[in-house]
Amino acid sequence: MKVAFQGEAGAYSEQAVFEYLGAVETQPCESFDAVFAAVGSGGCDAALIPIENSLAGSIHQNYDLLMRYQLHIVGEYFLRVRHCLIALPNVKKSEIKKAISHPQALGQCDAYLRKHGIKAEAVYDTAGSVKMLKESGARDTAAIASRRAAELYEMQILEEGIEDSTENYTRFLMIAREAIQPDAEAKTSIVFTLRNEPGALFKALSVFALRDIDLTKIESRPLQGKPWEYLFYIDFIDATHEETTQRALDHLREYAAMLRVLGSYPRFKGN
Amino acid sequence: MKVAFQGEAGAYSEQAVFEYLGAVETQPCESFDAVFAAVGSGGCDAALIPIENSLAGSIHQNYDLLMRYQLHIVGEYFLRVRHCLIALPNVKKSEIKKAISHPQALGQCDAYLRKHGIKAEAVYDTAGSVKMLKESGARDTAAIASRRAAELYEMQILEEGIEDSTENYTRFLMIAREAIQPDAEAKTSIVFTLRNEPGALFKALSVFALRDIDLTKIESRPLQGKPWEYLFYIDFIDATHEETTQRALDHLREYAAMLRVLGSYPRFKGN
Repeated sequence: MKVAFQGEAGAYSEQAVFEYLGAVETQPCESFDAVFAAVGSGGCDAALIPIENSLAGSIHQNYDLLMRYQLHIVGEYFLRVRHCLIALPNVKKSEIKKAISHPQALGQCDAYLRKHGIKAEAVYDTAGSVKMLKESGARDTAAIASRRAAELYEMQILEEGIEDSTENYTRFLMIAREAIQPDAEAKTSIVFTLRNEPGALFKALSVFALRDIDLTKIESRPLQGKPWEYLFYIDFIDATHEETTQRALDHLREYAAMLRVLGSYPRFKGN
Repeated sequence: MKVAFQGEAGAYSEQAVFEYLGAVETQPCESFDAVFAAVGSGGCDAALIPIENSLAGSIHQNYDLLMRYQLHIVGEYFLRVRHCLIALPNVKKSEIKKAISHPQALGQCDAYLRKHGIKAEAVYDTAGSVKMLKESGARDTAAIASRRAAELYEMQILEEGIEDSTENYTRFLMIAREAIQPDAEAKTSIVFTLRNEPGALFKALSVFALRDIDLTKIESRPLQGKPWEYLFYIDFIDATHEETTQRALDHLREYAAMLRVLGSYPRFKGN
């Protein structure tokens, strides 16, 4: 099995692949678009894409790609983002004066870096910062990246979990060419648009409420270029092949201008 | 009037301040937390904070700060993000081999840079990249930042609007210590939590639907550390001092475990 992800070897997305799927072959891709293309063309069997982060919100770009490509969601995984302070072997923490990483990772470790008097310097990505550090041989510099990146480049983890917020999770979706029928407790993700009428969303939600279907996510997103039109993302507990869900979706089609089922997949249970 | 924003002079947030409020005094702040503290302490009269972007989603961190500080939303502004290719005076576009900027801005201009064979190099922020370029004097390098940053550092704009998507908008909220009673068509923003029961959201939305109150945003956000509990963000058309809204909010309090009104403010009409 070959699984695509966005970023360089050692990226958090690759760590998510290994945690979720075990020892599979991975394929780094430059962009999210390239990830979808790799699965769409058959070059890869599946991919893991980040869809939302507990601090930074939903990644609309990947929702757009889910709509553009005819692929299916077949799984989900929640990665607890634990940033590691990574240095060359035998370097002591007291020697570190500077940290390099992606600006988002540096921002998420801001309090830690200030407390230890370490200056932050931005580079293109997290895993890339470990590679750069190894090549430079600098003993006064640390990289901030995943455990996986440290292992890959045979570097030393000075400290793990240096992020300021312990509530830093990224939700990943696994995508593939074929839809699945999940056996266990399932989640289904849909996207739809509504005609712009007061109470339209209330009617749309009634199709779930009347059938006691539990929603786990709802988000509206204004459609730019189409003022006053909205795209809605909904996740709910139940699989599309269940009769109740089929009826709810049929009912929703009466109100929705557009409705797309992105997939049914086993619900991820804790980590 | 003194208005705080996050970032360096010339940041997109500062451009939003000037576009929305005209020629006011601005106060750059290192972090969003510092922006809220500047207004809370009375050091600044108001601030503009980004709350959502059409490509990157909601900025949960600023929702968290809205809940932590006792400040009020008093306005909104939609900034169309137009990235500029900025160089030293008298440099020609054909001389440019490299572009420096924040990784997000570089990512948003990816197709443009590839098409013109320009290499991307990440630095800490957009406005900072213009300052760095000016100091370095490099003729083969361009910075990617706002029009405002180019003007501030007296640099040349080689091309404006080099972003790949024309649907790149950031919504800003203006915050202040005192709430206002908007005269014109108003929007109100609220945050609430619901007890975890099937159909809870449906009941919550009924308080608006039954009164023909139009929602302009709804988003659920899982409360990390409290599995199966959700925070909801809702914006709707109407002001809190209107009787209909007062009744709707009283009604919502019957279902909501927590409800906080973040403010009523004039709705922004197009740009």
